[in-house]
Amino acid sequence: MTPDTHADGELTRQLDRTHVFHSWSAQAGLDPFVIAGGLGSEVWDFDGQTFLDFASQLVNVNIGHGHPTVVAAIQEQAALLATVAPANGNLARGRAAQAIVAHAPAGMNKVFFTNGGADANENAIRLARLHTGRDKILSTYRSYHGNTGSAIVATGDWRRVPNEYARGHVHFFGPYLYRSEFWATSPEQETERALRHLERILQSEGPESVAAILLETVVGTAGVLVPPPGYLPGVRALADRYGIMLILDEVMAGFGRTGAWFAFDHFDVRPDLITFAKGVNSGYVPVGGVVLSDEIAATFDHRVFPGGLTYSGHPLAMASIVAALGAMESEGIVANAARIGTEVLAPGLAALADRHPLIGEVRGLGVFWALELVVDRGTREPVPAAVMGRLKGELMARHLLPFLAENRIHVVPPCVVTDDEVARALAIYDEALTVVEASL
Amino acid sequence: MTPDTHADGELTRQLDRTHVFHSWSAQAGLDPFVIAGGLGSEVWDFDGQTFLDFASQLVNVNIGHGHPTVVAAIQEQAALLATVAPANGNLARGRAAQAIVAHAPAGMNKVFFTNGGADANENAIRLARLHTGRDKILSTYRSYHGNTGSAIVATGDWRRVPNEYARGHVHFFGPYLYRSEFWATSPEQETERALRHLERILQSEGPESVAAILLETVVGTAGVLVPPPGYLPGVRALADRYGIMLILDEVMAGFGRTGAWFAFDHFDVRPDLITFAKGVNSGYVPVGGVVLSDEIAATFDHRVFPGGLTYSGHPLAMASIVAALGAMESEGIVANAARIGTEVLAPGLAALADRHPLIGEVRGLGVFWALELVVDRGTREPVPAAVMGRLKGELMARHLLPFLAENRIHVVPPCVVTDDEVARALAIYDEALTVVEASL
Ligand SMILES: Cc1ncc(COP(=O)(O)O)c(C=O)c1O
Ligand SMILES: Cc1ncc(COP(=O)(O)O)c(C=O)c1O
Repeated sequence: MTPDTHADGELTRQLDRTHVFHSWSAQAGLDPFVIAGGLGSEVWDFDGQTFLDFASQLVNVNIGHGHPTVVAAIQEQAALLATVAPANGNLARGRAAQAIVAHAPAGMNKVFFTNGGADANENAIRLARLHTGRDKILSTYRSYHGNTGSAIVATGDWRRVPNEYARGHVHFFGPYLYRSEFWATSPEQETERALRHLERILQSEGPESVAAILLETVVGTAGVLVPPPGYLPGVRALADRYGIMLILDEVMAGFGRTGAWFAFDHFDVRPDLITFAKGVNSGYVPVGGVVLSDEIAATFDHRVFPGGLTYSGHPLAMASIVAALGAMESEGIVANAARIGTEVLAPGLAALADRHPLIGEVRGLGVFWALELVVDRGTREPVPAAVMGRLKGELMARHLLPFLAENRIHVVPPCVVTDDEVARALAIYDEALTVVEASL
Repeated sequence: MTPDTHADGELTRQLDRTHVFHSWSAQAGLDPFVIAGGLGSEVWDFDGQTFLDFASQLVNVNIGHGHPTVVAAIQEQAALLATVAPANGNLARGRAAQAIVAHAPAGMNKVFFTNGGADANENAIRLARLHTGRDKILSTYRSYHGNTGSAIVATGDWRRVPNEYARGHVHFFGPYLYRSEFWATSPEQETERALRHLERILQSEGPESVAAILLETVVGTAGVLVPPPGYLPGVRALADRYGIMLILDEVMAGFGRTGAWFAFDHFDVRPDLITFAKGVNSGYVPVGGVVLSDEIAATFDHRVFPGGLTYSGHPLAMASIVAALGAMESEGIVANAARIGTEVLAPGLAALADRHPLIGEVRGLGVFWALELVVDRGTREPVPAAVMGRLKGELMARHLLPFLAENRIHVVPPCVVTDDEVARALAIYDEALTVVEASL
């Protein structure tokens, strides 16, 4: 990272503006932050400036940047055999599937691999529909499930609206006590009322027409919404009553993010299908997939599964999964995320909230937290976009890469984050909030 | 590849049967062919047996297996920085986009990257709809466009039918003289009538409701259907007449397969959107994307593009594209595919057809060919599935990995295939056909 790499940064910016079309954006005036390299919870630019990555990029680099075991596994597999057709067997693929189901509940033994989270959800939806012979997919308004045809319409947020070309999707409200849709005032009441709402939606849609309920175990991009006690078991009971499949989307929440292998490990609930991506290999190679219950898998023993993709079970991706899960186990990375959550982030963020009236609520677990910023703690009115923009500037100026969504800071470092790095980040959040509050 | 790796082959098979859920199949009784490694146009199993890969896996390994330049680029990028969020700039991404648009027509300067072919088509469809403000997507019955929500419904073949949850898709018949849907008897007539059919479909659907016509430039999986002279320019003219976008799906046909960089280079036609995957990096890392016309790109200068995915422009994939395209240029790999097509495969396959009454038609270009097998050359009745099964056995027994689809052998080796390898393959096809014909 010598100063003479400065030109590479300029070149990156120039090529990007000329040739790269960016997601979820208007293209004019984009000025991307350029990353040259990274290690652990830090990344650096071409000028040798380092930044704390408290976004884990898109909440995927759970194992941190540049993990040597995963890098070596990719390098070895690339030399051995980068790609095979899905129909051809490959050792890394079997090992990756085995490593994943080792963390799944008993009775879930098969994995269908995809390229990312969106097509994981596409295929889970397909499996649920074909297994049940039913049509409708229920998901929440506060959710993100991906960008492809069905996944984007399963998604609840604004991104669904310009893309509503899939049919059979119904949306409902999940629990979110801080902004309750059910006029609830306690977690118990939020659970009870959210379940009652879901059952009324089911009854109104006709439960026998519903193939699956698709939920993020802990809602991610839409706010780090940890389900209140009893909610997920209640959804499971409703699904069982009506013969509906429960798909838990663990794309963001899975593989360490919540301080557990799967987020549903916290909530006494068993899904029929699990979708995953991101944390399974920290995104070092694009990959995702679906873990199937034995019952659903058996439906396709003698019946053709009508889905597939060229890179299903791609060797390079598979080798990176085997290495990443192995390293997470042997290095206690999930346990670190749990400990950081309980011992460092929970008290640290609570202390931050004590000092900053802008923080309306702190919620989360593991290395998966949100600070909800409000103009007024009484009205809970969200801070305007301009405040978030200013905050972003102050955080970047202090060399912290933040994850900001609507009126929230998501505090989502890699699972390998150290006590010291969290302390540095908390100090930066503190300073930035102080500056922004002073300017209001 | 020592005999004691035999156990790894057994382990691969066992893990696969226990934990891997396969695409496009009933799961019971699958017995995947296990690949341990590969180089150029050959792969080998764990018993040290080598096979000619005349499938290029799923018609994606255009540069051959284990290309040292691409392997090295992946290894270097893995060590440097495997993954960044799409919003963050990355040098390999800009370089990859630049390398791709260098082969595109003038006026197509931006690339949106995806993880594979399906989501490339998803995003092209989205771009066309938002750019035109129209709804319908027209594609042919003989086509495959991918597995996700909209891509699978754009697909024409049987795989669409259990997955029809997207709306706004209309299908029509493309040209296919050997089994003409238009009672045509010459290429000129097939072109004229196929265009007339398309225009009637357009008029009947209401041309002002049509956002895009989506076509594989050369239809791949559905039969290596090379469009007859004048067809694609005729489609372009219809699209222009009605303000409709033309999306050319170059996922299988692009990047060398036809002996040209893009298949449409053969046909005097300019698309508005190009989708690609497979050959762009030979599938060494999962990737795909869309090349946008400047006009469509400009629509999103000040308007948000509502699409995205975590691994859009993934550094590892980008580095493999830069290396693969660089090596294809410097090693004359596209020219090799063209030469092999004209000088070796065309005469060799014609000679094969002379000797084997089972072969009803030979068609193709570059390293993209189909032999259509028929019971009777007069009736053109396709050979039954059992014959294809026997043929597969005979080809595998002679150490050739074939690509078989319906009643066809697709002859689709890597673009780096040598004269000698083609000669060996032709001898194997010859023997296998002789054995199968003798058994009928
Ligand atoms: C919960 C959840 N599901 C699905 C997805 C889609 O994953 P991908 O971007 O890999 O398609 C995301 C991405 O952020 C996600 O957070
Ligand atoms: C023409 C064409 N388009 C799209 C696709 C889908 O690509 P992927 O399997 O990478 O999603 C394929 C795959 O075979 C294809 O041949």
